[in-house]
Amino acid sequence: MRHNQPKPQAGNLVLGIHPVSELLKSDKEIEKILINKDLMNRQEGMDIVFACRKREIPYQPVPVEKLNRVTQKMHQGVIAFVSPITYQKVEDILPFLFEDGMVPFFLVLDRITDVRNFGAIARTADCAGVHAIIIPEKGGAQINEDAMKTSAGALNHIPICRERDLGRTLNYLNDSGLTIVACTEKGAESIFETSFTGPLALVMGSEEDGISEFLLRKAHHIAQLPQVGKIGSLNVSVAAGIAMYEALRQRLAEKL
Amino acid sequence: MRHNQPKPQAGNLVLGIHPVSELLKSDKEIEKILINKDLMNRQEGMDIVFACRKREIPYQPVPVEKLNRVTQKMHQGVIAFVSPITYQKVEDILPFLFEDGMVPFFLVLDRITDVRNFGAIARTADCAGVHAIIIPEKGGAQINEDAMKTSAGALNHIPICRERDLGRTLNYLNDSGLTIVACTEKGAESIFETSFTGPLALVMGSEEDGISEFLLRKAHHIAQLPQVGKIGSLNVSVAAGIAMYEALRQRLAEKL
Repeated sequence: MRHNQPKPQAGNLVLGIHPVSELLKSDKEIEKILINKDLMNRQEGMDIVFACRKREIPYQPVPVEKLNRVTQKMHQGVIAFVSPITYQKVEDILPFLFEDGMVPFFLVLDRITDVRNFGAIARTADCAGVHAIIIPEKGGAQINEDAMKTSAGALNHIPICRERDLGRTLNYLNDSGLTIVACTEKGAESIFETSFTGPLALVMGSEEDGISEFLLRKAHHIAQLPQVGKIGSLNVSVAAGIAMYEALRQRLAEKL
Repeated sequence: MRHNQPKPQAGNLVLGIHPVSELLKSDKEIEKILINKDLMNRQEGMDIVFACRKREIPYQPVPVEKLNRVTQKMHQGVIAFVSPITYQKVEDILPFLFEDGMVPFFLVLDRITDVRNFGAIARTADCAGVHAIIIPEKGGAQINEDAMKTSAGALNHIPICRERDLGRTLNYLNDSGLTIVACTEKGAESIFETSFTGPLALVMGSEEDGISEFLLRKAHHIAQLPQVGKIGSLNVSVAAGIAMYEALRQRLAEKL
């Protein structure tokens, strides 16, 4: 399994039509591209959009004012956000885990938008023995310098898989024999009654509205963290930590 | 058991010799007082110091520049930080818990200095059924607006006991029949092998150097969170959440 190497241009922007076109021809990881919507009906703009589609890189046509807010430097209507990490594919990781005799443990984050929550979760995931974190292409936190910092280095080690369609990914994980456990306040059973041994995908949802309905329907178990206090709401990075460590507890016990 | 009521002057400063003297005569909770060291050998200054000592309020003689950095308003050499919560005493809480047939669960925080970590821990403590949080008079996070906010309201509910000497407090808890479990990376046993049932004081340590040696010596168990990853370091608010929920898991299981 490859590990993510931090790149020297971590968190950097690439500006301008020619530099972004060259970047798109390289194998460098690109978070997303913002493009002046007035460029969309010109050849340069169409070339960039075509290259984005080909490489499955998210792009967003925006008014020029939005580009000016991102940078005061010359951008010619195009800004690319270069990723500090190299994304991987679930399909490239899972078979190797099975081959190595590991019991796969994936963490699926459905639209965790807060950069520091994301970093903190990655930090705990590394400690809890998670093999890879799966995030959606759209609607998740941007992996930037703050995320790298909050992760205390974990984002340099733990593979991150960015998937276009989390539903399709859960289908694939299900077909591969993983048990899918969604952890949410809506859960009918307690995480302490849920089995986390065996090949596992643990799903945690967004700070605002939890896990999407269409993903909940794919879960074998919908589990909740018992709460006995007055406020009844855990921070998502703490909740994810508790769920991952309950999984670790059960998996260590099974090894004994 | 009383609960903390947020006060209207939450997070506020009280400035000036006469206002602070009146504040000291009231029963309002005061975090600490900064006093111009040049005032210390004048009657007004000595009166304030005497009142602080009588009420066991931390005070700190400082150069006038420090006071000027806190506020640009007229302070006459004295600034009081009013607390948004009402502190309680362990001795006032523990007997009531036993009388009510509860199994006491206290969380002792040894110099958690980050305000947001403190708020996040209080939030989880409420959800995990902690009866009170014990903090030291000196060296802990100031309970300010940010702490209140990060706690998601928990600091309005969960009693906070501010103790001058945590060592003496642990002695008292030990004499009262509580098991003291210190949770630290230096632990010899895993938290998953430690019993958290029965009357319990869980001790967590500072972000920088963990739990003080003199407190570790008072613990019946020194337990660590197993870590299987590469970075081997959990955020203290996540670690505290995992330990509190392991305690909750065991305590719920015992009730079954």
